Amino acid sequence: MAALITGLRTSDVRFPTSRELDGSDAMNPDPDYSAAHVVVETDADDGLTGHGFAFTIGRGNDVQVAAIRALESAVVGRPLEAVLDDLGAVWRELVHDSQLRWLGPEKGVVHMAIGAVGNALWDLKAKRAGKPLWQLLAELSPEQIVELVDFRYLSDALTPEEALDLLRRAEPRRAERVAELLRDGYPAYTTSPGWLGYSDAKLRRLCRAAVDQGFDLLKLKVGADLDDDVRRLRIAREAVGPDVRIAVDANQRWDVPTAISWIRELAPFDLWWVEEPTSPDDVLGHAAIASAIAPVRVATGEHVANRVVFKQLLQAGAVSVLQLDATRVAGVNENLAILLLAAKFGVPVCPHAGGVGLCELVQHLAMFDFVAVSGSTEGRVIEHVDHLHEHFVDPVVVRDGRYLAPRRPGFSAQLRPEALRDHSYPDGRVWAGG
Amino acid sequence: MAALITGLRTSDVRFPTSRELDGSDAMNPDPDYSAAHVVVETDADDGLTGHGFAFTIGRGNDVQVAAIRALESAVVGRPLEAVLDDLGAVWRELVHDSQLRWLGPEKGVVHMAIGAVGNALWDLKAKRAGKPLWQLLAELSPEQIVELVDFRYLSDALTPEEALDLLRRAEPRRAERVAELLRDGYPAYTTSPGWLGYSDAKLRRLCRAAVDQGFDLLKLKVGADLDDDVRRLRIAREAVGPDVRIAVDANQRWDVPTAISWIRELAPFDLWWVEEPTSPDDVLGHAAIASAIAPVRVATGEHVANRVVFKQLLQAGAVSVLQLDATRVAGVNENLAILLLAAKFGVPVCPHAGGVGLCELVQHLAMFDFVAVSGSTEGRVIEHVDHLHEHFVDPVVVRDGRYLAPRRPGFSAQLRPEALRDHSYPDGRVWAGG
Repeated sequence: MAALITGLRTSDVRFPTSRELDGSDAMNPDPDYSAAHVVVETDADDGLTGHGFAFTIGRGNDVQVAAIRALESAVVGRPLEAVLDDLGAVWRELVHDSQLRWLGPEKGVVHMAIGAVGNALWDLKAKRAGKPLWQLLAELSPEQIVELVDFRYLSDALTPEEALDLLRRAEPRRAERVAELLRDGYPAYTTSPGWLGYSDAKLRRLCRAAVDQGFDLLKLKVGADLDDDVRRLRIAREAVGPDVRIAVDANQRWDVPTAISWIRELAPFDLWWVEEPTSPDDVLGHAAIASAIAPVRVATGEHVANRVVFKQLLQAGAVSVLQLDATRVAGVNENLAILLLAAKFGVPVCPHAGGVGLCELVQHLAMFDFVAVSGSTEGRVIEHVDHLHEHFVDPVVVRDGRYLAPRRPGFSAQLRPEALRDHSYPDGRVWAGG
Repeated sequence: MAALITGLRTSDVRFPTSRELDGSDAMNPDPDYSAAHVVVETDADDGLTGHGFAFTIGRGNDVQVAAIRALESAVVGRPLEAVLDDLGAVWRELVHDSQLRWLGPEKGVVHMAIGAVGNALWDLKAKRAGKPLWQLLAELSPEQIVELVDFRYLSDALTPEEALDLLRRAEPRRAERVAELLRDGYPAYTTSPGWLGYSDAKLRRLCRAAVDQGFDLLKLKVGADLDDDVRRLRIAREAVGPDVRIAVDANQRWDVPTAISWIRELAPFDLWWVEEPTSPDDVLGHAAIASAIAPVRVATGEHVANRVVFKQLLQAGAVSVLQLDATRVAGVNENLAILLLAAKFGVPVCPHAGGVGLCELVQHLAMFDFVAVSGSTEGRVIEHVDHLHEHFVDPVVVRDGRYLAPRRPGFSAQLRPEALRDHSYPDGRVWAGG
């Protein structure tokens, strides 16, 4: 008997991060980092399970769980190997389900639910192959990678043939880059010092600590109050000196004209990039901001709903740094499309991470990009926040400002059983106060 | 004691429309028109309730209901009059809830849930005032209307001052237009003949019937097969003659290059507009298509997630016909913003309707637009599909190709109790087969 997918086990997991103001920014004053978590269960003899999640920041995580459950009938009962052998077809089927599609299309909780389930299937596929996901992906042929991507709505910017060309150009030196990755890791930057809720003293201390830990790029939240931003940037710049790069993140706080005038006030502090200056839907707005604030560079992506919006940001020259997110779009397959688009337009991908578990996931995508797509770490860096990693079975390891390549099989998405149990909302120990 | 909002009563209501292929198009072969319905309950002496819903097409309607429930804690227990007196503030509070916002932002089921609840509050406000919603809105001062709109992310295209100017220009002749509306109604067009699932004979018969019923614009679904489209357009054009306008609707089926070549093949049939040629997120794609197929005009809107995307479609000259939807965005307040944007750019609004209950809702928005915003019905028309109106307490009335202005208090969103009961999913009579 061929093994079947037997269930999607979902959990509403929330971490009470708002109690410490970790993660506070101009739009998100009190996030409780959460995961709508899913485990793909099978009756295969290997006993392996696939883990995935959508990251949210608290209220509504239950809606996200409900959206994952709505995919149950499309996945459960299907033959495991056939599903894992053709994750491109599974992606198309889930994303283009005509009735569920109405709820987006291709955006919001339904799209993120497809991402969670898709990522869990990739986790399972990698575990069964005995490889970390980045390596599994990096060993696929260019043809196999292109087969995983849905080019619908992309063909005016990127055709399958162009994607194939890109991948073939990167192919000859894959082994060399794998060796480099295993030896040196992948560059990281840190957001830990810069949350808005922190005092000036804490900001100064954490900036110095970040440099001591080997980071040469750190990021500060801005956008709530201009005087505060100027003061905090001065403190940070004094703390780290002129050679460490500082990026700022406005978390969508501004309208276009405000963004332009505000950023001009902050530009003297030598900004590496300005992140999420306005609505993530505003392609033309980002283009207007980018052209007005050049040479300061615009970054965005963590709230960009899908590959179609990324395509336009690239077409319009609206972003100089593309920040894909592992759980915002519909999982690995859509992120393959986004990596290929970025490579086509020559824009570096610097993934969004932090939250809970996002660092664990995006490292695989960035490392795959290095080995098999862009072939470079030049101008590329993965966000790191030193936070909540202890809850994962295979947590990230960052040393001297670099992510070490994960070696365990899978997508590093698996929460520890006690983390799932204690943070289950609303009945877990952490929430029930028991 | 001031009256309180005491509850949000939700229902998952689905109509088995897929059994008849009503509503079939190139992307939606078998929709079951559905409503995630909500009733706002209060303890006021008047016993009035507010009704609203998000329209979906079947699977996932339960997720939409879950999203509405997630808003319960933000609404229930609040003083009724204070809420209804400041629906602008309530909108901002719901849309900018920092935790729920993460699930969009401002798109997908959470945004639509805010639309459903917001529309229900408007229904209640209009009932308490004893007026149909269009009239209630049309009697607000320009200042009151501007107060209802959130200009966040819009100010590069429309400022509150510009909106005020627009509204003030339309103000002097409001009474005249109300009289005209009550006398003549508002122009309608029909989509009933053109579903893809219908036979050629049924298409021909329904086209003739539409003209006999007084419609001078009808719409056909296209996009699945070019030869079929040419044949069906020929049948329709022969059936209605050269003077009746024919629009076509591709329901997002095409990539940009395909859209351009396909539309060029159909252009000889004299197309009034081409609707949803590609992804609703693709502002630049719509702009490219619009410029390539001119003078054929591009229409879109039913899947446009929010006012920020509409803003860009207008800025880019990507649409010549703006098709707002009553339940896709966050309700009346956001649609006020969209009407003002369209007026600023001089683009006619022709609302998307059909589905279940959408005709009932959008007529109020179009009529308000005529009286108080654009001041014109020139080039404007409301979609009409003769379908499922019998389930509403206050159904639309279309005579001689025109919507008659509704006279009953409220937003016409209230389903009949037996419709709610029989179509409740999965236990109602229609679904349980009882």
